[in-house]
Order: sequence, then structure tokens, then C-alpha cells
Amino acid sequence: MLTTMMDVPLSLNHVLERAGALFPTQEIVSRRPDKSLVRHSYAQWHRRTRALAAALAGLGLQQGERVATLCWNHHAHLECYFGIPAAGGVMHTLNLRLAPEEIGWIAADAQDRVLIVDDVLLPLYGQFKHLHAFEHVIVFPFSGTSVPAGFTDYEAWLGSADPDAWVPAPHLETDPVAMCYTSGTTGRPKGVVYSHRSTLLHTLVACMGDFWGLKGSDVLLPVTPMFHANCWGTPYGAILTGAKLVFPGPHLHPEDLLDLMTLEPPTLSLGVPTIWMGMIQAYSAAQDPAHPQHGRWKLPQGMRSLVGGAAVPESLIRAFDAHGIWLLQGWGMTETSPLAAVSYPKAELRNAPQVERYRRAAMAGVPVPLVDLRIRGDDGQDAPWNGQAVGEIQVRGPFITGGYHEVPVSEEKFTPDGWLRTGDVASVDTLGFLRITDRTKDLIKSGGEWISSVDLENALMGHPAVAEAAVIAIPDEKWSERPLACVVIKPGHTAEAAALNAHLLQNHFAKWQLPERYEFIAAVPRTSTGKFWKLKLRQMFPN
Amino acid sequence: MLTTMMDVPLSLNHVLERAGALFPTQEIVSRRPDKSLVRHSYAQWHRRTRALAAALAGLGLQQGERVATLCWNHHAHLECYFGIPAAGGVMHTLNLRLAPEEIGWIAADAQDRVLIVDDVLLPLYGQFKHLHAFEHVIVFPFSGTSVPAGFTDYEAWLGSADPDAWVPAPHLETDPVAMCYTSGTTGRPKGVVYSHRSTLLHTLVACMGDFWGLKGSDVLLPVTPMFHANCWGTPYGAILTGAKLVFPGPHLHPEDLLDLMTLEPPTLSLGVPTIWMGMIQAYSAAQDPAHPQHGRWKLPQGMRSLVGGAAVPESLIRAFDAHGIWLLQGWGMTETSPLAAVSYPKAELRNAPQVERYRRAAMAGVPVPLVDLRIRGDDGQDAPWNGQAVGEIQVRGPFITGGYHEVPVSEEKFTPDGWLRTGDVASVDTLGFLRITDRTKDLIKSGGEWISSVDLENALMGHPAVAEAAVIAIPDEKWSERPLACVVIKPGHTAEAAALNAHLLQNHFAKWQLPERYEFIAAVPRTSTGKFWKLKLRQMFPN
Repeated sequence: MLTTMMDVPLSLNHVLERAGALFPTQEIVSRRPDKSLVRHSYAQWHRRTRALAAALAGLGLQQGERVATLCWNHHAHLECYFGIPAAGGVMHTLNLRLAPEEIGWIAADAQDRVLIVDDVLLPLYGQFKHLHAFEHVIVFPFSGTSVPAGFTDYEAWLGSADPDAWVPAPHLETDPVAMCYTSGTTGRPKGVVYSHRSTLLHTLVACMGDFWGLKGSDVLLPVTPMFHANCWGTPYGAILTGAKLVFPGPHLHPEDLLDLMTLEPPTLSLGVPTIWMGMIQAYSAAQDPAHPQHGRWKLPQGMRSLVGGAAVPESLIRAFDAHGIWLLQGWGMTETSPLAAVSYPKAELRNAPQVERYRRAAMAGVPVPLVDLRIRGDDGQDAPWNGQAVGEIQVRGPFITGGYHEVPVSEEKFTPDGWLRTGDVASVDTLGFLRITDRTKDLIKSGGEWISSVDLENALMGHPAVAEAAVIAIPDEKWSERPLACVVIKPGHTAEAAALNAHLLQNHFAKWQLPERYEFIAAVPRTSTGKFWKLKLRQMFPN
Repeated sequence: MLTTMMDVPLSLNHVLERAGALFPTQEIVSRRPDKSLVRHSYAQWHRRTRALAAALAGLGLQQGERVATLCWNHHAHLECYFGIPAAGGVMHTLNLRLAPEEIGWIAADAQDRVLIVDDVLLPLYGQFKHLHAFEHVIVFPFSGTSVPAGFTDYEAWLGSADPDAWVPAPHLETDPVAMCYTSGTTGRPKGVVYSHRSTLLHTLVACMGDFWGLKGSDVLLPVTPMFHANCWGTPYGAILTGAKLVFPGPHLHPEDLLDLMTLEPPTLSLGVPTIWMGMIQAYSAAQDPAHPQHGRWKLPQGMRSLVGGAAVPESLIRAFDAHGIWLLQGWGMTETSPLAAVSYPKAELRNAPQVERYRRAAMAGVPVPLVDLRIRGDDGQDAPWNGQAVGEIQVRGPFITGGYHEVPVSEEKFTPDGWLRTGDVASVDTLGFLRITDRTKDLIKSGGEWISSVDLENALMGHPAVAEAAVIAIPDEKWSERPLACVVIKPGHTAEAAALNAHLLQNHFAKWQLPERYEFIAAVPRTSTGKFWKLKLRQMFPN
């Protein structure tokens, strides 16, 4: 027997056209380099996006060819999210925080034909253009000044294209629409290629009520850069639901974000923990009547914020909850589109004590629909979900990558039965909550026992004087490895090793689990995606 | 360039296994024939469902073969929803409200191999068993009494199967999982066959925040029978999100439902307008201190209710809103899985006056994602979305049927370019809201102008004395057709034609649009799915 259902492919073009038809008056707000706000309606965005598709077709772009973007978060970047696939192209978001050499290497590896770049990022382009020859460089006049001679002006180029001339080409749902490179701290970055299918499925799952819970009445402020795992997929969700969008442009400092949230209060936001730590510190400091910014900011009451990219300390969740803002921790990676797990308040926790809810909120969460997840122990067997047994997280599903662009599938990254090896080590409890204990390569093996650097970091960051803490392994003759804690003390505070050890003992760490040594540093070095750059720390403190 | 995403098919088996792993303690409550409640945990349901799959495999069920159900809404029917597909079978829900001859014809047309039937429905089975020979008849002892000799006892059969023996067979995502017959008022019923893919996509779309908004913390009470378009797909959504389920069993009278809602307060419910009309009438009557049921019921404050299957009068929406219950109107049909449009409060209506919000809530709603929708005028052209122009609603998408089981694709049902012709006539306004003006065959053409029977019905049902109103066309020598209103007056009320006409004039009907005649009847005849059976009315009042 056969299904009688229509054979209609999933397509971003459907999402684009639907938004144009159903949400014409909804708003997209972008912050310019001079901090002024520019507003577009969905109707305008829709026509501009169609014009972009027509303009790319005019350049002779062929199905599957890459169009790179080097842009901040703004409406034109959102045009690229839909306009490039509408032209049959693949949007390749370049990460402007990488070293220029690395950006150039990535553009060459992806064989990008076209580059769409913010005018304010042309100096960066200048630093890597010798490494890859784009056929066309289109400059978006983000700052409002005229585009330098020798470049195509995005606005003029769009203006010369006819939005009504665009006719969506038939495509398979497995055809590619976007590409991101992983920010591996070891080895060369590798390209992950998303399809219409994976993007739509990820968006539908992530939009569900327990996760993003995205509705047309939401106001979404994506602090996460649009070049990080497609802004965690949220722009697709906004356009699918017809939500209002507020883009911060290049202004990602805590004070700038507090200004923007006060001007255009979001109901949903997203970013890495560092962003939220900085914001709550700036906001709290300004509560002092003597502070120069006193009274300037209003936190958006009732906002939910997706936080991910690194573990979210429980203390941060509690701090925001006190202001009526709920941090919803997600776990995932570029390879998983990215949302693979969310730490939402499950029905089973409804009557649990508040301390229990916070404890779960600080975990990596529960696997989302369409993601199969298992934890594989050292013995190659699935570890039981008992909250104790640990293993490497392995995942499988229609929005999980099964390989990398032009890289042979390796056993280091994929199991023989086709699951992605994430490199994260976790336990899963009886309610399905993942607790990341470490990265495989960050585990500390002391005297035959594992010590979780992540647990130590979270506990240390719960100390009132500690702004940030990163724990690495140092070699030890007797114990093989011992933990070293690199700690950043908050301005105006002090704390010594003895006080921090006492705090850890209070938090139920065993004596042998305490750091062997503390290093007090000015800042934890970070990767371009905002994660603790432990490789760098290991170089700084080799022993 | 190729996507790097994994090729993993959408599968109900994933949803089944995920629910077993993540929501073991969540509850499924079912009301038995004796009105007692029986409770199962998801963990129990999960093991029973796996046992069902193993038991069906034990019968030699092959991929794609049909297993019919003749059951009320309860936990065992939910086991069929996942257990039959888990065995590779196709769940075919028989509509117990049809005439026995029709049920038998449908079972034969579908070539059902197995029947799973409630013990309380065995008398009905006896009335059609001569029309189709099931190879196996399994009786669910719903009433708790022992199963008659000669039948297999569902409980004993399940108990003899090993839940751990079930291994999901590989399948395509386009493989069939369920089958429903349309309740055509003309011609033979026709089978619609859903797939893993269509079911998962429909579920994900319908779960979105603006539509069902289903979360794990929800309590779902499906009043809609599980044999109507798969209970509008909601059981799949509940299992996907881990929501609590409350099944009413055979007790669908307003007073029974009020009892159940008082015992197990739902946050989300669903049913046809008649159900809600009956409930609000019973509840309102009981507000009188002299009423025998005074103080017995509590309406679930904050509940949302999906209402569909027939137009929802604005007066009904207002009546429930006064009690803190929001009726969310959906539009669709068996052919559309069924949710194709939802009348949710769009962001654009946020600052609109209340009267405007109610007006839209009483419309059929906005097309949901993955559904392409157009209205085709008599001229074969797409009518503009201006709130005035009308045309037939035509839809297309991955959860819309493109044909019927073993019926050649006809031009009456499908356009040459592959869209489903729904037979409903509507306008769409600038915000994308569908207003159904009529069924194509129910339009009244008077003097060259169309009169909407639905508009007349809605307005008449807004009159305080009118319980129900159905309007049909009667032949007229001068005007070709004229409207005839068949009206049911509420007990204890009176209203005459003159008063009803005055009411219509007040509601902005033109004089020529008023019914030519009124017939005061005891009840509007209904189809088995609860829709006004206009064919019957036309037979009753041929002129």
C-alpha cells in the first residue's frame, strides 16, 4: 500500500513567500554602525529578498554554488538567508572573528563565487583577499556612506533587479541552502552543509513550545552572530512564525545591548553565557544611585533567553530569574544545526522544589524530537540513563551532519553505524537531562578517577568574587593529571586559593578533586565562538 | 554541491521510543464505560505499545497491511496509533457513527486484515461482519467484563507478547501509517493514506506556539473521536511533547464532559462546535441556584480549545471567553491531515479593538506553514486577498492528500497542476484570514448574486433564541434560488420569522439576502462527523 500524500519538497522558498503574504506589516529593526535604528517591514524585506535572488541569477549563479557573507546581524544579512537559497545558491557565512588567514582559507575551501560584505568589514576583507579570488564582491553600505570605487553597491545592485522576475526553480529538499565551518580548536575548520530539509525540520522542532516557543507575537533579539550556526537557526524561525526581529548590528557590548533592549524590548533573545554575564554585571552595577548609568536601563520582564555555546552557571540563571528573565539552556554544535537538547522545565518538575528546577536548568537539557541520542562508555556500550554513568554523546537525525564538505568520513568523527561523535562527555539522568561533564579531550584523570573540569568551573563561578573560571589538566607524576584552575576575579573583589577551596568543599567536592593550583588571570582566552579556549590555556600553563 | 546532513527518515518509531525514554512518569487517563477512570503511565503505555507491535508481528502482519480499529477514545486506541505502525501496519480507524453497511463497505474497500474492537462495540460489529471477513478480531475488554468466546482478548494477547522482542523494521518515511475515510455526503467514502512523513510534518507544524501550542506541561482532552482524521492529529502531538492525556471514552454528552473537566482539568481540548455549544448551555443553566447541578462543575480557567469541523459562531467564542477559555478555530479536512488553517490572534491584531479580534476568531484562520493555499475564482484565476473576492480554496503541501486509496485521480478533486480542490469557497483578507462563505455545492445564487448560507447561519445563531440554524437553497422561478432557513429554537424561547429577519437586518444583511422562508425544526440533521447534513435538509424541504 502507498501513501496518498502529495510529494511536495520542504523548501525555504515556501517560507519566504508565506511570510511576504501573511506578515507584510511586521517589523525588522536593525542597528546601524552609528547606533541609529533602521526599520523595514516584512513586505519590504520580502521584495528585497526576491530582488537579491534575481540579482544573483543575473550574475549567472548556478544551483549549489556558494555565496559568502561577511556581515554583522542586520536586515540585509537576513535577506541573504533566504535570497541566496532562492537563487539556488548556498549561503556561506564567514566568521569575522577568525584570523584573516583562516577566513581566506575557508573561503577558498568552500570555493565561494560571490562575497557580500558589510562596508565596515572591508578592512578585514583586505587582509584575506589575497587568499581567495571571489568573482564578485558586493558591498552592503551598512554605515550609509558611499561604497568605495571598484566594488558593487548592494543597494544599487538590488535596485536594478526585478523582484517580480524571480521564479523559484524546482529543487530537491536535500539540495543545500547554507554552509557553516566548525570552529575546531584542533585541525582545519570543516564545512557543514545544511539543506532545505534539515533547515525546515530543525526550525519546526526548535519552534515548539518547550524550546524556543516562538510565536508571531514574539520580538526576537539575536545576539548570537548570524555567522554562528546560522544564528542557531532563529532567523528561519522568526520568518516562519512572523515574529518581529531586532538586530544589534555590530554593537554587542553589554551596555549597548541593554540600551537596545530598553528601546525595543525583546520577548526572546539568544547568546553565549559571557554576553549574559556581562549584561547582568553592568545592569547590577547601575542599580547604585551613584552610578553614571543609574536608571538608564530596563530589563525586559518576562523575556526568555536561549543560552548556549558553553555551560551556563546556575548562579547566572538565578541572577536573571530574580529579574523575571528565564535563561533556557540549549546544547548543540554547528554539526547539529545546532539545537540538539534544551533544558526546559519538564512536566515532571512541576511540583519539584525550586532548587531542583535550577539544578536541571543548569544542565544541558533533554534531547529534542528527531534527535536520537546515546552516551557511549569507554567499553563501547551505551551507558544507562541513571545520572551517574558517563559516556561520549553520540547523535543521529535528519538535521545532524553525516560528514563534512569534501572531507572523507573519519572514525574520529563518526561511528561505524553512522552516529556523530560529538566529543562531549555526559551523563543522562532518569528524566533525560544531559549533564556535560567534559569534552573528551578536557577530562582530568587523577589517580585513576575522572575529575570534571566543567563541574569545578561551574562551582567556582558560583563564588561571589569569581567572574570566570576555566579548569585544565596539568601533568602530575604521582596522579598522572591534576586540575589547574584559571580564575578571573571580579573588579573590586578579592579571593584567594584557600577561600575558593573552602567554597568547593562546601559545594560537596572531595578533597582530591580540588584544584592542584590556581592561576589568577585577567580574562579567560576564548575561541571566536566565545567558548573557553582551553588549548590556549594549556599553552599558557603547560605544567 | 551536496548537503552533508544525515539521510534519516522521519519515523513514528522515533516518537514512540523517545516518549518511553523521556516521559516515563507522565499520565494517560481514560474513562471507562462505567465512568470510572483508569490511569497508565507513559512507561506502561510504551511497553504495551511495543507488545502490540510484537503481537501483530506474531499474526504475520506484513508491511503496509491494514489493521482496523473500532474504538472510543482511550489508552488502548492510543496504543494502536503507534503500535500498528511500529509493526509496519496501517491503522485504519473505522467511524462507529456510520451506518453498519457503510462501515462494512469501508472495511472491505480497505482490505483490513485485523480488527481491534471495543467490547462495548461488538453489537455494532455484529451488524456489519457479513460484509467483510477480518482474519483476526481482537476485542479490547474496555468495560472490564470477560471477552465473549470465539474472540481474542486484547489484554491476554498483549500479555503473551514480549515488548522487548520488538525491533523496528527499516522503512521509508513515505511508508503508510494510518488511513481515514472521508465522510462524503455524496458518493462512496474514499480512503486517505497518511505516511510517517506527513504525520510527523503535520504534528510539528500543528504543535507550533500559535496553533496547538502544545507543551509537555499541557493536559490534553480530545473530545474529537480518534476515528476523525486521527483525532485531528493531536495524539501524535501529545506523545511528541510528553503531555498528559485525558480520554473521555464513550461519554461525550455535555454533562459528562463537564464532569471530566472538573475531575481532570485540561489545558487544551478539541471538538466540533456542537460539543461546545452543548457544554456552555449546560454550564450556564447550572448557574441558577435552583438547578439540580448547581455548583457541580468548574470550567478549566485558561484552557484553550481547538474547534473545527464546522464554522464556529462568534457568539460561542465570546461566551467561552467570558469564562477565560479561548476557542481557537481551525479549518481543514481528512484530506489535509487535517489542520490547514488556524485563526490565531496574529501580531497585527495586538492593538486592534476587541471586536476586531472576535471577528477574526470567527473566521477559518490563516494557512499554516507547509500549506500553500490559493482561492480560485470562477474565471480560473487566483482571486486577490482583499477580503472581498471569493473562490474555491485549493491547497498543496506535504501533508495534503494527492489522491485516494485505489481511486483514480479525478478533475473534480484535483487540479491539473496538482492542487487539492477542497470544495470550500472563501475570501482571504489582507492579513491572510480565510472566511469560508460556503461549500461550492451550498452556494445560493439569487438573481445573479451569491448569498452566503454560512453568513446567514452564523448571524441567526447569534440571536438569543436560536440554538442552531442551517440555510439551504430552494428553487425560485424568478430569482433562480432563494435561501431557506431551518431553525432550532432553544427550549423556553420563542422567535418568529419577523423577529429573526429584524435581527438579520440589524446585522447588516441586505433585504434581498433575507431567507425566503423559515422552517422551525427540532434538530438540524448531522453527518456522522457532526456537520450540518444539508443533503438531508434539501430532501426534507425540496422547495
